Amino acid sequence: MNFIRIGVQGVSGLALLLAAAVSFGCSSQPKGQLSSAPSGSVANLMKQRGLSEADVSAALQTYTPTGKKDEYYTFASGGHGGNLIVIGVPSMRILKYVGVFTPEPWQGYGYGDQSNEVLGGGKRFGKTMTWGDMHHPALSETGGEYDGKFLFVNDKANARIAVIDLHDFVTKQIVTSQLIQSDHGATFVTPNTEYVVESSQYPAPLGGSYAPIEEYKDKYRGAVIFWKFDRDKGRIDPERSFAMELPPYMQDLSDAGKLASEGWVFINSFNTEMSYGGTLEGNPPMESGASQNDMDYLHIIDLVNAERVSKEDGKTKTIAGMKVIPLGVANEEGLLHLVGEPKSPHGVDITPDGKELVVSGKLDTHATIYSWEKLKGLIDSKKYEGKDTYGVPILPFKDSIRGQIEIGLGPLHTQFDDKGNAYTSVFIESTVAKWSVKDLKLIGKQKVHYNVGHIVAAEGDTVSPDGGYLIAMNKWAIDRFAKVGPLLPQNFQLIGIDNDEMQLLYDMPLPLGEPHYAQMIKADKLDPIDIYKPAGMDVVTDEHSEFAVKAKEERIERKPDGVHVYMTAVRSHFTPDIIRVKKGETVHLHITNVEQAHDATHGFTIGSYNVHSSLEPGKHVDVTFVADKEGTFPFYCTEFCSALHLEMAGYFLVEPG
Amino acid sequence: MNFIRIGVQGVSGLALLLAAAVSFGCSSQPKGQLSSAPSGSVANLMKQRGLSEADVSAALQTYTPTGKKDEYYTFASGGHGGNLIVIGVPSMRILKYVGVFTPEPWQGYGYGDQSNEVLGGGKRFGKTMTWGDMHHPALSETGGEYDGKFLFVNDKANARIAVIDLHDFVTKQIVTSQLIQSDHGATFVTPNTEYVVESSQYPAPLGGSYAPIEEYKDKYRGAVIFWKFDRDKGRIDPERSFAMELPPYMQDLSDAGKLASEGWVFINSFNTEMSYGGTLEGNPPMESGASQNDMDYLHIIDLVNAERVSKEDGKTKTIAGMKVIPLGVANEEGLLHLVGEPKSPHGVDITPDGKELVVSGKLDTHATIYSWEKLKGLIDSKKYEGKDTYGVPILPFKDSIRGQIEIGLGPLHTQFDDKGNAYTSVFIESTVAKWSVKDLKLIGKQKVHYNVGHIVAAEGDTVSPDGGYLIAMNKWAIDRFAKVGPLLPQNFQLIGIDNDEMQLLYDMPLPLGEPHYAQMIKADKLDPIDIYKPAGMDVVTDEHSEFAVKAKEERIERKPDGVHVYMTAVRSHFTPDIIRVKKGETVHLHITNVEQAHDATHGFTIGSYNVHSSLEPGKHVDVTFVADKEGTFPFYCTEFCSALHLEMAGYFLVEPG
Repeated sequence: MNFIRIGVQGVSGLALLLAAAVSFGCSSQPKGQLSSAPSGSVANLMKQRGLSEADVSAALQTYTPTGKKDEYYTFASGGHGGNLIVIGVPSMRILKYVGVFTPEPWQGYGYGDQSNEVLGGGKRFGKTMTWGDMHHPALSETGGEYDGKFLFVNDKANARIAVIDLHDFVTKQIVTSQLIQSDHGATFVTPNTEYVVESSQYPAPLGGSYAPIEEYKDKYRGAVIFWKFDRDKGRIDPERSFAMELPPYMQDLSDAGKLASEGWVFINSFNTEMSYGGTLEGNPPMESGASQNDMDYLHIIDLVNAERVSKEDGKTKTIAGMKVIPLGVANEEGLLHLVGEPKSPHGVDITPDGKELVVSGKLDTHATIYSWEKLKGLIDSKKYEGKDTYGVPILPFKDSIRGQIEIGLGPLHTQFDDKGNAYTSVFIESTVAKWSVKDLKLIGKQKVHYNVGHIVAAEGDTVSPDGGYLIAMNKWAIDRFAKVGPLLPQNFQLIGIDNDEMQLLYDMPLPLGEPHYAQMIKADKLDPIDIYKPAGMDVVTDEHSEFAVKAKEERIERKPDGVHVYMTAVRSHFTPDIIRVKKGETVHLHITNVEQAHDATHGFTIGSYNVHSSLEPGKHVDVTFVADKEGTFPFYCTEFCSALHLEMAGYFLVEPG
Repeated sequence: MNFIRIGVQGVSGLALLLAAAVSFGCSSQPKGQLSSAPSGSVANLMKQRGLSEADVSAALQTYTPTGKKDEYYTFASGGHGGNLIVIGVPSMRILKYVGVFTPEPWQGYGYGDQSNEVLGGGKRFGKTMTWGDMHHPALSETGGEYDGKFLFVNDKANARIAVIDLHDFVTKQIVTSQLIQSDHGATFVTPNTEYVVESSQYPAPLGGSYAPIEEYKDKYRGAVIFWKFDRDKGRIDPERSFAMELPPYMQDLSDAGKLASEGWVFINSFNTEMSYGGTLEGNPPMESGASQNDMDYLHIIDLVNAERVSKEDGKTKTIAGMKVIPLGVANEEGLLHLVGEPKSPHGVDITPDGKELVVSGKLDTHATIYSWEKLKGLIDSKKYEGKDTYGVPILPFKDSIRGQIEIGLGPLHTQFDDKGNAYTSVFIESTVAKWSVKDLKLIGKQKVHYNVGHIVAAEGDTVSPDGGYLIAMNKWAIDRFAKVGPLLPQNFQLIGIDNDEMQLLYDMPLPLGEPHYAQMIKADKLDPIDIYKPAGMDVVTDEHSEFAVKAKEERIERKPDGVHVYMTAVRSHFTPDIIRVKKGETVHLHITNVEQAHDATHGFTIGSYNVHSSLEPGKHVDVTFVADKEGTFPFYCTEFCSALHLEMAGYFLVEPG
C-alpha cells in the first residue's frame, strides 16, 4: 500500500512541466501487456478530454493502478438501502456492499438458516423487518483509536443495532429493544467499545404502547440505550445493557467523551418545544412547531455513575425487557444535565483531545465550542440556571462555552485533521468550511455539489486524526453525472485537505442507498481473512458447524424431522447432484464448500423454490424448507466458478406425496 | 459530453514532456474553489504514488472531472444480486443499481402496491420469488442499433424476463412461463425488437411436472420462448408470444440474426450427451458426462416461418398457458436445423454484417467462423449429414464454416470493433485476444485479472460497433483490491482498443452482484426524464394515478375497504402528519410527492410496520397494509431532503380495536 502523503504545494504549469522531465528521465515503469504503452500525451489527453491542470493533479492523486491497493477504507451507512458501503480511498471505488438490515442474495444474506437467524434478531413486535434505514456506522475503538475489528450501525426506522465483524465483513448480530420506536443518536462507541450508544429520536410511550398524541408531554418519552459489547464474544450482550429515560425532546446525534471527557456521553436534541404536528387538526407542522425556541438542549450524561446506578436494587424499572433508569432517579443521582445549544442543532462533535465539544445549529450560522472543563465545573458546583419541565438541571449556556465562530448558512457536522483544524459541512450554502479550533478563525471554504450532509475526514473523529482526505457526503447530485432517471445518486466528493487551500479531487456517485454518516480508517488496521478454515465454518457463530460435510461423506438421510442432504461443492460439481424427495417433506440442506482456494466461491440455487446460498471457500450453509411443489427442479452453481460452471448442476426431484 | 475519440499513438517520455509544454502554454483552466490549484506536479505525484507513464496515460483517459459526463453507459446484469448495474464509461463509476428481481428499499422497489404488482408478475407456481439470477441484458434495437428506449434481462434461476424502461430507469414488467424451469439464452432481441428470445438451459418436462430422471431422454425437453414485445405499450404481450420445443440438450446462449441473417435465431448448446449426473448413484458427474463428445450442436431457427406456423390451427399445443410448436411440427415445417460446433461452446456471436457466426468452445482452443451463406445454402438444398435422436436435421460442419482461428485455452465470448476486428475472452489463460475477422489472424493479447467471462465492447454486438472501449468482465479479483473478506468483488477492467496494442485503463471492483453480460451504449442515445409530471404519476403504469393527491386536498376517509389516507409530501412536511386508526383496520396510503424540483426526492416509512416508499419528484405511491399492532409509531421522511428533514415526521397512532 502507498502511504506516502501528498503534501507538495501548488505549482505553475511550467514547474509541472519541468518536474515531469526529471521524473521521466529517471522513472522506470513496468513494461509489457500489463502497463502497455501510453495511448496519448498529457497535452493531447488534456485537450481531447477538456482537462485542466487541476484535473490532471486530481486524477494522479486518485487513480490507483491495477494491483495497487487503496490507502483507506471508508465505511458508509447505506441509508434506507439498509446495507453497509465499503469504499476505497483515494480511488473512491466501492469495494463491497455488506448485507445488514436488508436481505442480499449475492451474499446469500437472508437466504439460509444462519443469516435468517441474524435477521430474526431484529424482529419488531414479532415481525421480521425486510429493510432498514442505516444512519451512523461506528468502528470499534481501543483507547479512542479505531482498532479495525468490528463495526456497529443503526436502523433509525426500527430502532435496531447491527454488529459486523471486519475479519470477514459479515453481519453477525442484530439487536433491538421495543423500549424505543426509532433511533438517531446511534451508533457511537465509548473509547474502548465498552458500550454502543443508541438514543431515540421520535418520542413515544416507552415500550411502544398506544397513548393519545394529546398526552405527548405526559406519556411520550425519549431514551438512550447503552448496549454492552462483549469484545471476546464479538457480540452485544443485551443482559448487561441498560437504558436511561429522557425527556420527550427529539434527541438527535450523540458522541462519547474521550480522554479529558471519557466516561461521559453527549446527546443533542431539537423540538424542545415538544411540538407534534397535527396540520389537519389545526396545529402547526413540526418543521415550524419545532423551530420556535432560539435554544434547544444538549444532554450531558454521566455514564460511569449511570452504570453503577443501573446495578443498584430498586433504582431501575424493566420496560420491554430492558433495564431503565427513570428520569426521576437520573435527577436524584445527578446523572443527567442539560445545557442550551443554538437552534435546531445537528450533531455534537468532541475535539480529538476530548476537551471541547462542537455543536452547530442548522438554523444558526455558528459553530459553538463548549469547554468540557467549564461544563464539568458547573456540574460539580451545581451551578444551574434552572430545571426543565422534567426536573433536569440546566447549566448556564454563557458560562459553558469558550466561544462561537461564524460558519455560514446551515452548518451541520464537524470533523478534525492532524493540524488543529476543524471542518464543518454547511448544508444550505453547499460548502465545507475549514477553521482553526485554537483561534476560532475561518481559514477557507470549498464549494461542493450539492447540499452536503455529513462529512468524514481520515480518522477524523478519533483521538488522532490523520488529515489528508475528507469526503463531503452530498445529498443532491443534480447535474453532476450522466442521467439515470428521477431518482439520482448522491455525490461523495473527495477533498484533499493537506494544503491550506482544500482541493476537490473526485466526484463519486452513490449508485444504491443514501448514506448519512461514514468513518474512514487506515487500510492497514484491517486484516480480513481470505478463506474460512477449516472447511465447514458456520460464518454466523464463527464456529465449525456440526453439520459440516467432508468430501466422500456426502449422503442423504431420512430422519423424523425430514430429509437431510449432506452436500459438498467443489469445482465443478455438487455431491449429491440428484436429490429425490416426496411432496410435503421437510428438506434440510447442509452444504459445505470444501475448497480452500482464495476466491473459489460457489453459489447454490433450486429454481422456483426461492432457495439460494453463497458459499465462499470453506463456508458451510444450512437451508431448511418444505418441498411443497411437486415437479422437476434444476439446481446449479450461481457463481461462474470454472470453465465448466454451467455443468455444475443437478436435479431436485419432488415426487407426488 | 466529450465524444472526442482518443486515437494518438504511444509516445516517449520526452514527447510526453514536450507536448505538455505546448498544452500548458496555451491551456486556460477554470480558477477558484472548484478547480483549485494542483496539489502536486506530475513528477512528484508519479513518484509519490508509484505511477508509471502508462498509469498517467490511463488516469487521464478515464478521470472525469466534476460536472463532466461519461461518454457511454454500460448496463451489466447483477448476477445473483438480481439487480441491474448502470456504469459510466470511461470513468467506470457505478451510476445506479436498478431494482429488478430483488426488492430494493432505497428505490422503494417491492415496498408498495405498484412495484409489488411488478414483482408479483414473476411468481413461480404461485409463489413470489425474492431474488433472481440475472445473466444477459439486451437493449432494445431499431435496425440492429441500440435505440436507448428499453432494456430486457433474464433470471436464469426462475426462467423470468424483466422489462426496464430507460426513460426513468424503472422495472415495469416481469413475465415468466412455467413451460421451462431455467433459462440462459436470454435475453436477446431481434433487430427491431419484435421478439425477446428466452431459451431454456436445464431440460425438464415441459410445464414443470415431475418425471423420473431415468426418463430424461423421453420426457425432459428444452424450449425457446419468443416473447412478443409491444413497443407502443412498452410491455411484453404474453398473448402474442409463442415457443418451440427443443431436444433435451442444454441450450446455452442465443443470438438473433441481423442484416444478411435477419429473421433467424441461433442457439448453441452443450451436453448433447444428455448426461444428468447421479454421482451417488454410480453415474459420472455432469461436468465429465457432458464433455464426452467432440462436437455439440448449434441450433438454427427460422423465426419468420416459426411465427407463421405458430398461428396455424393444429400446429401448436398449449403448455402452462404458452403456445408451443412441438419438435415434430418443427421438423415437418423445416423450422429447426442443427450443425456441429466444437466441444462445450459458450456463446454464438453474429458479425456486424450478419454474414458470419463466431462460436468458441470452452474445451476447444479455437474460434469457429460459420458462413451464413453456406448454412443457408445447406438448409435450402436440404444437404444433411444426418438427423439427431429427435429427427432434427444436422447440417455438415465442414461445409458450413469459413475457417477456424487458434485463440487459446478456454475461449468464451466474442465482441467486435469498428475496424473489422474481433475480441474473444479467454477464460483459462486470463486474456482478451484481438483478431482480424477477415484474415482470421491473431493480432494481440491483453492480460486480464483474472478468469475473464464475458466481454463487452462499445456497441460491440450491433450492426455498427464503435470501437474505443472494451470491458473484460473478470470473475476473480484475488489480489487486485484492498481485502473485504472471503467474498470478493469481481473486476471489470476497462481496455482501450483504438490502437493496435490494447491498453489496460482501469480496474473496477464490483461491490455487489456477479455480472455475466453487459452492453455498452452511447450516452447521447438515452434521454431519461428528471421528474414525473404532472405530479401524481404511477410509475409502473406510466399514467396519472386515480389516487393522486393535490396540495390542499389531503384527507383521511373511512370506506368499507378500510382507512384511505390521501397524503402529500413536500419540503419539509407530510400532510396529514397524524394518522389515527383502530387495530385491525386495513390502511390504504395514497402518497404523492407534489414537488417538481429536480432531485427533490422524499422517502416515507412507518417504524416497525415494514412500510417504506421512495417518492421521487411527482411520483405517487400506494401502500396497503393491516394495522395489526396497536401502539404509537412515528413516521418520517427517509431522505435528507432539506435542513429540516428530521422535522419531516408524524405519528401513526393505532388505538386498541
